[in-house]
Amino acid sequence: MVDKKAIVLFSGGLDSTTVLHHAISEGYKCLALTIDYNQRHNYEIQSSQNYLNHYDIDGLIFKIDLTQIGGSALTDEKIDVPIATDDEIPITYVPARNTIFLSIASAYAEKYKIYDIFIGVNQIDYSGYPDCRPEFIKSIQGSINLGTKSGVNGSDIRINTPLINMSKKEIIKYGYNLGIDYSKTVSCYQLDNEGRACGKCDACTFRKEGFRLAGIEDPTRYKN
Amino acid sequence: MVDKKAIVLFSGGLDSTTVLHHAISEGYKCLALTIDYNQRHNYEIQSSQNYLNHYDIDGLIFKIDLTQIGGSALTDEKIDVPIATDDEIPITYVPARNTIFLSIASAYAEKYKIYDIFIGVNQIDYSGYPDCRPEFIKSIQGSINLGTKSGVNGSDIRINTPLINMSKKEIIKYGYNLGIDYSKTVSCYQLDNEGRACGKCDACTFRKEGFRLAGIEDPTRYKN
Repeated sequence: MVDKKAIVLFSGGLDSTTVLHHAISEGYKCLALTIDYNQRHNYEIQSSQNYLNHYDIDGLIFKIDLTQIGGSALTDEKIDVPIATDDEIPITYVPARNTIFLSIASAYAEKYKIYDIFIGVNQIDYSGYPDCRPEFIKSIQGSINLGTKSGVNGSDIRINTPLINMSKKEIIKYGYNLGIDYSKTVSCYQLDNEGRACGKCDACTFRKEGFRLAGIEDPTRYKN
Repeated sequence: MVDKKAIVLFSGGLDSTTVLHHAISEGYKCLALTIDYNQRHNYEIQSSQNYLNHYDIDGLIFKIDLTQIGGSALTDEKIDVPIATDDEIPITYVPARNTIFLSIASAYAEKYKIYDIFIGVNQIDYSGYPDCRPEFIKSIQGSINLGTKSGVNGSDIRINTPLINMSKKEIIKYGYNLGIDYSKTVSCYQLDNEGRACGKCDACTFRKEGFRLAGIEDPTRYKN
């Protein structure tokens, strides 16, 4: 039997945790890659690593300080995180984030000769970030294979997006059936000092509504 | 008259210095973006910044430590820089380097609303790095525009590669006619403590031969 391996972009949030367990359930030996981009919600890093330790999953952290660029409420502390808005592309959008993250993942893919990358993007209940759309993923996969040694040598890198067409409700139901304990995952962009979610930002709003529609009790601790 | 602006990926080497002066000669107000990836040849950073200061060109440095990934003679000190080889893709290839660099440049492009990016890749006298080929550049430009807010909003980012089809000889002749002082540029992967080039690595070999073929005196200080 071939030893299936995958690199999973893992923030410790609801989506990437579901993707991680999806990949494990499909028989992949997973390396969870967490990008510490000096994001506002930096507890995300600690929380993600606690999760991996708890379940004994291999992980590594890559540090890239995107506050050097800024331009987003998540990477510039002078910009406030808004309550959920109807803006087409909100200010929590981090310029070229998934392009940067997938470039880094593909460099690791080359180094470790692991040709499956998983990422938890989806285009249904999402914030309108352009780098979560399937046309972007398809395109960047092509670029990565043209721009890497692996691609030239015929070992194409595949970017897997199992959640791409799932609603938040479907993601939660799917993960629940996989046995995921969502109380251990963090989605909020601005957790308080006691680890409680704000309940108001985009990430909280999608999450709350997802649990409600799924008919599953929301284990998140909210401030209000 | 429209105010033309550009972001130029600038390492201080022969190619990117030529690209920088090309863009200036075309009327662009340039922002030189130097990526400090903790490369072996780290004097490159100092040298590039001295150059910009000398000519009073705006510059900024983005730090991303690619030794976290390694996998190349330039980012892993356990791997020696080879003398010039005929390997199709040599060990100085840094996994996904230009994919990562162009992602970062495009994030700055979005932040500053500067939609022209210049990069000094070329496919003639080069080391066989896959991320220097025109098909890669064309593809990643498409991906970047699908994955960024600018692209969605109709402000397409253009990746300009004026050297792509020039030989090293042609690049040197062209830059010489622009008035570039190549003694101020550094190409070697392993300069010695006195600032002398090794004369043996891929970068030195292409440079030396370029000056010879161009019939222009090579101002580089070589160790041997």
